Amino acid sequence: MIKTVKVAVIGAGFMGSMHASIFASDPRAELVAVVDRDTTRGQALAESIGKGVRVYASHEELLAAETLDLVSICTPDHLHLEPALAIAAKGVNLFIEKPIASTLEDGRRIVEACKAADVKLGVGYLLRFDPRYYKARELIEAGKIGKPIHLYARRNSARTEGPKRYAGTLPLAMHVTVHDVDMVLWMLKGQVPVTAYAQQTDILLGEMGTQDTIAGVVRFSGGTVVTFESAWSLPAGARHMIDARLELIGTEGSFEVQCGDSGLYFADNQSSQEIDTQHWPEIGGKVGGDLRQQLSSVLDWVNGVECQVATGEEALLSLELTQALVKSAETGEVQRL
Amino acid sequence: MIKTVKVAVIGAGFMGSMHASIFASDPRAELVAVVDRDTTRGQALAESIGKGVRVYASHEELLAAETLDLVSICTPDHLHLEPALAIAAKGVNLFIEKPIASTLEDGRRIVEACKAADVKLGVGYLLRFDPRYYKARELIEAGKIGKPIHLYARRNSARTEGPKRYAGTLPLAMHVTVHDVDMVLWMLKGQVPVTAYAQQTDILLGEMGTQDTIAGVVRFSGGTVVTFESAWSLPAGARHMIDARLELIGTEGSFEVQCGDSGLYFADNQSSQEIDTQHWPEIGGKVGGDLRQQLSSVLDWVNGVECQVATGEEALLSLELTQALVKSAETGEVQRL
Amino acid sequence: MIKTVKVAVIGAGFMGSMHASIFASDPRAELVAVVDRDTTRGQALAESIGKGVRVYASHEELLAAETLDLVSICTPDHLHLEPALAIAAKGVNLFIEKPIASTLEDGRRIVEACKAADVKLGVGYLLRFDPRYYKARELIEAGKIGKPIHLYARRNSARTEGPKRYAGTLPLAMHVTVHDVDMVLWMLKGQVPVTAYAQQTDILLGEMGTQDTIAGVVRFSGGTVVTFESAWSLPAGARHMIDARLELIGTEGSFEVQCGDSGLYFADNQSSQEIDTQHWPEIGGKVGGDLRQQLSSVLDWVNGVECQVATGEEALLSLELTQALVKSAETGEVQRL
Amino acid sequence: MIKTVKVAVIGAGFMGSMHASIFASDPRAELVAVVDRDTTRGQALAESIGKGVRVYASHEELLAAETLDLVSICTPDHLHLEPALAIAAKGVNLFIEKPIASTLEDGRRIVEACKAADVKLGVGYLLRFDPRYYKARELIEAGKIGKPIHLYARRNSARTEGPKRYAGTLPLAMHVTVHDVDMVLWMLKGQVPVTAYAQQTDILLGEMGTQDTIAGVVRFSGGTVVTFESAWSLPAGARHMIDARLELIGTEGSFEVQCGDSGLYFADNQSSQEIDTQHWPEIGGKVGGDLRQQLSSVLDWVNGVECQVATGEEALLSLELTQALVKSAETGEVQRL
Repeated sequence: MIKTVKVAVIGAGFMGSMHASIFASDPRAELVAVVDRDTTRGQALAESIGKGVRVYASHEELLAAETLDLVSICTPDHLHLEPALAIAAKGVNLFIEKPIASTLEDGRRIVEACKAADVKLGVGYLLRFDPRYYKARELIEAGKIGKPIHLYARRNSARTEGPKRYAGTLPLAMHVTVHDVDMVLWMLKGQVPVTAYAQQTDILLGEMGTQDTIAGVVRFSGGTVVTFESAWSLPAGARHMIDARLELIGTEGSFEVQCGDSGLYFADNQSSQEIDTQHWPEIGGKVGGDLRQQLSSVLDWVNGVECQVATGEEALLSLELTQALVKSAETGEVQRL
Repeated sequence: MIKTVKVAVIGAGFMGSMHASIFASDPRAELVAVVDRDTTRGQALAESIGKGVRVYASHEELLAAETLDLVSICTPDHLHLEPALAIAAKGVNLFIEKPIASTLEDGRRIVEACKAADVKLGVGYLLRFDPRYYKARELIEAGKIGKPIHLYARRNSARTEGPKRYAGTLPLAMHVTVHDVDMVLWMLKGQVPVTAYAQQTDILLGEMGTQDTIAGVVRFSGGTVVTFESAWSLPAGARHMIDARLELIGTEGSFEVQCGDSGLYFADNQSSQEIDTQHWPEIGGKVGGDLRQQLSSVLDWVNGVECQVATGEEALLSLELTQALVKSAETGEVQRL
Repeated sequence: MIKTVKVAVIGAGFMGSMHASIFASDPRAELVAVVDRDTTRGQALAESIGKGVRVYASHEELLAAETLDLVSICTPDHLHLEPALAIAAKGVNLFIEKPIASTLEDGRRIVEACKAADVKLGVGYLLRFDPRYYKARELIEAGKIGKPIHLYARRNSARTEGPKRYAGTLPLAMHVTVHDVDMVLWMLKGQVPVTAYAQQTDILLGEMGTQDTIAGVVRFSGGTVVTFESAWSLPAGARHMIDARLELIGTEGSFEVQCGDSGLYFADNQSSQEIDTQHWPEIGGKVGGDLRQQLSSVLDWVNGVECQVATGEEALLSLELTQALVKSAETGEVQRL
Repeated sequence: MIKTVKVAVIGAGFMGSMHASIFASDPRAELVAVVDRDTTRGQALAESIGKGVRVYASHEELLAAETLDLVSICTPDHLHLEPALAIAAKGVNLFIEKPIASTLEDGRRIVEACKAADVKLGVGYLLRFDPRYYKARELIEAGKIGKPIHLYARRNSARTEGPKRYAGTLPLAMHVTVHDVDMVLWMLKGQVPVTAYAQQTDILLGEMGTQDTIAGVVRFSGGTVVTFESAWSLPAGARHMIDARLELIGTEGSFEVQCGDSGLYFADNQSSQEIDTQHWPEIGGKVGGDLRQQLSSVLDWVNGVECQVATGEEALLSLELTQALVKSAETGEVQRL
């Protein structure tokens, strides 16, 4: 039998709430606490879960009071560093929502701290647990694609979502494109990016302090070319909730991941919409989908089972390439890596 | 902590192997044994799993040797009755692959035996655990559809699959249509079918002892009309691996479940194909998807958690309506229920 | 050079206006007149076209004043008979919008009158000029499908369209299903329908005096089974403007005609919608698409070039089968043909 | 009545044959001659058409013998210049297949010659006559899109097509991307490109003397960013025959043109494929679709009717931007325009 993993979640917002709910209903885990500076919010989350989950106002209080196997950090990106260093120093394993941090400097310190403390560090690149992306990568590994020639990676969503939540924090690319950057780097393991070029626009969302879209082209050491396109400026009525795609042409074969094809489409007298059936659909009152799959795998991984979770080192690479795209978009110059 | 469920699987074929593999990697369960008359096959399965799984040649041997909480029956449909009665008599919970049995008579005896022994009985209608169908039904429950007007339920697949496995056993409808019949009855709970009419063809597969297609129209007590269409005669190169759909028009809204939209499409120099990302994709060396979701839920259900698994009584209703469609197709007459 | 065809259009409504506009801009034709009892409406149409198009209040006036090669009848279905008989008696060729008439009796009289007068009679089954359907049928003719096993023909559209225009006149099937019935009969030439069964609903639109949906199953003499499904009760926000499909499984191959795939999708902040690019898109200020293709072909046909336009005899067959479906839906009984 | 246009076609290859066939069956035109250095090929085309079409071995012979209103040039791109200058000098209108020429220098000389001779010059950018693209542009013109933010233009096709025909001549971008460049420039009229960047690959097709793919990003003067992606290296079994898309995000709305959605899908026991229903489907023995629509419009245009055909000046602009993308791909440097 697998040993039960004692877990805490830091951050009781959108992602943190889902983490807590999933851990609480997974037999591999015992959710012992949630942490949020806003203890009212933390309390509300703990109560919605029940089972005697405790609430703390800071990671210091958490670490002082509890014995833990794993902490999941779901705070805003620029607030990853401090708790991460403290948790690692306590010898507790870490799972951090993507990107690993808001700067490379922070990210490197987290990676080094975990290495020094010999604790596991996983970063929440969810697409690795999406069967569409996972099975697509498997086609490459199985030799069905041959040598990759070109990839096109899109991640577009409605202006009513991301910008409301994230405008004014990190740029669009750091919230959105970074997902695809991690996936592409994972798929092209063995090659490294050599040049990055991008253009961005702020026609619609500039006054909210963010970008509408970013479009980039990256050349890899093996000659593969990758086009990235991210937007969170689709109209509210757009037919795809998340128009995310990954399309690869190789010497032997090609694949298309089409996340717009959720398989469930609803219409009423106003409009039609796709319904999420993959990322985190609630099934039988519980959050399911890729997110549950990821966290279950992370629990097994803490117990020694291999898993495709992004490592800290991998998260530094995706952060670095994403920053190069942002810099190119800001300067208009090709970045050499 | 949830109590570990001691499980055995009877039948080491296609479905039974997946059941065993899933139970073996779920922390809710302890897989104690697999049973198959062909002990070589049983042995091979047990070895592929490891963990000291024992092998028996019959349910009698299994029940004599083991203390169990749950047995999953994955034998051919006409061989469900005997083990089911014996297992229920021992006071062990049952999960049976669909349909519950090859005849209503057998099915009723199983349901009664479980009721008499006060054991749980679940039947493997997998679509209830497919997020596309599950979330579609939720739209009805949430009042977003209003009163259902018409449903169209299709389940078409290639001639290279089902007929090879099942020709000469039960008719097409009992293998294929019965999935949609269960789903429709679940969605239309509160209405009962009043008339059933169907036509079938055996132009291609008649000489293999089965039907190519069946097309039926059922009228329900509340006035809703349902069209069923099933075929296992698609050409081998068909663009959808499983062209399954459920489309509902209601007074307030409509939905489309499109299982052909798997979201992952592969092509090489010969052909293109969809890749399963939902039913039972292998992820990280383990069977995932709806089937894992179903069996995990069944394990929780044995421990007292509610779950949408089809009950024995529900399985009798889907068997009855499917048989009415078959009878109409064979006689050309409308069946009144 | 092809001789110019002198044409008049009777009925200045939705279809008649498009006919007039197309004839006026086709070098094969000279549009001499439009006819409408409502001469204001007729006048408005003539003026929008210019070129000295004359206006009459009745077919009697038209025939008294003009020398014609072709008259297109676009009046309501129950008003086809009288002008058709008068025009045929004058020795003028006829094109009639589908269905040929509201009753078989009327239809037969029109066919006989045209035969007696030795004039051409074409009926406006537009799908024969839709490249998707036309090329699909060609696959059958070319032997790529083998023997047809099953066809599924759907034609669903929004409750905001058809019922507003047609509720209270002929039943849904006579407006909508009849399109697919003609196409299926054309594709299955050589077989005849032997039984027809249907169910219909009036849950939503009953109080407007029409049906929501009709679902039928027809068996043909060669063993092919056809499922028909028509609805004009989709919610206003439905993602397909016209969710029309024709899907055929044959012994050698299969095809799918998917008219929802218009190839152009628009979204704003309220909703998304498909835009017609095939039936009658306006291009460069002129009605184009299948409708133009059909009328151009009819003009060539009047001049002796063969064409796939539905003949009067074919239109009687589709009317007959559609009426059988309606009768079955009204009585609940299988109709034998 | 519109005056009949006397036409000749130079080049009896793939495109020239379709031009000749369309002109021969359009009542607006009289096809008087076809020209090909290979008079056997020219003769074969003329005979397939009949109607006394004459054959010449050179444009000099053609111009010496015939009185013409329009000549269509369908020779290889580097052979446009000479006939174009001679035809213009004779005062005859010109239609040239895209791109206008293989170099800007040649293109400019053609444009100047036509201006000097006061003859019309149209260039065959077919997408302007594709209802999907045409109606998409109309959405912009009608203000439904607002200000364009980002466009994504893809044109991918199988390695078994383009490279066989064109490898070793002009680069991929000049054959393929140039279509989308013309369309984007037409849609963004009022803006001019300011920077262009691209990367290309020759992993698969380098040894045939051509590129596999090119991916570019162009910034326009109004701030709009456009991503171009072209490939003729899809595997032979790819599910889309021509995977061409144009997707625009604007401040008020968005659209998607999806040419892969041809609406007709065929499968046999080997593979599935889309069937062209839009570009040049043969209907009733005649080439139809966009190509016919374009040539009919050009005939009306010669007679004074306005039309969206690309002008010589527009064709120079698309050639210029395409060349900038090619130069960037070859040098790795951003091109400023």
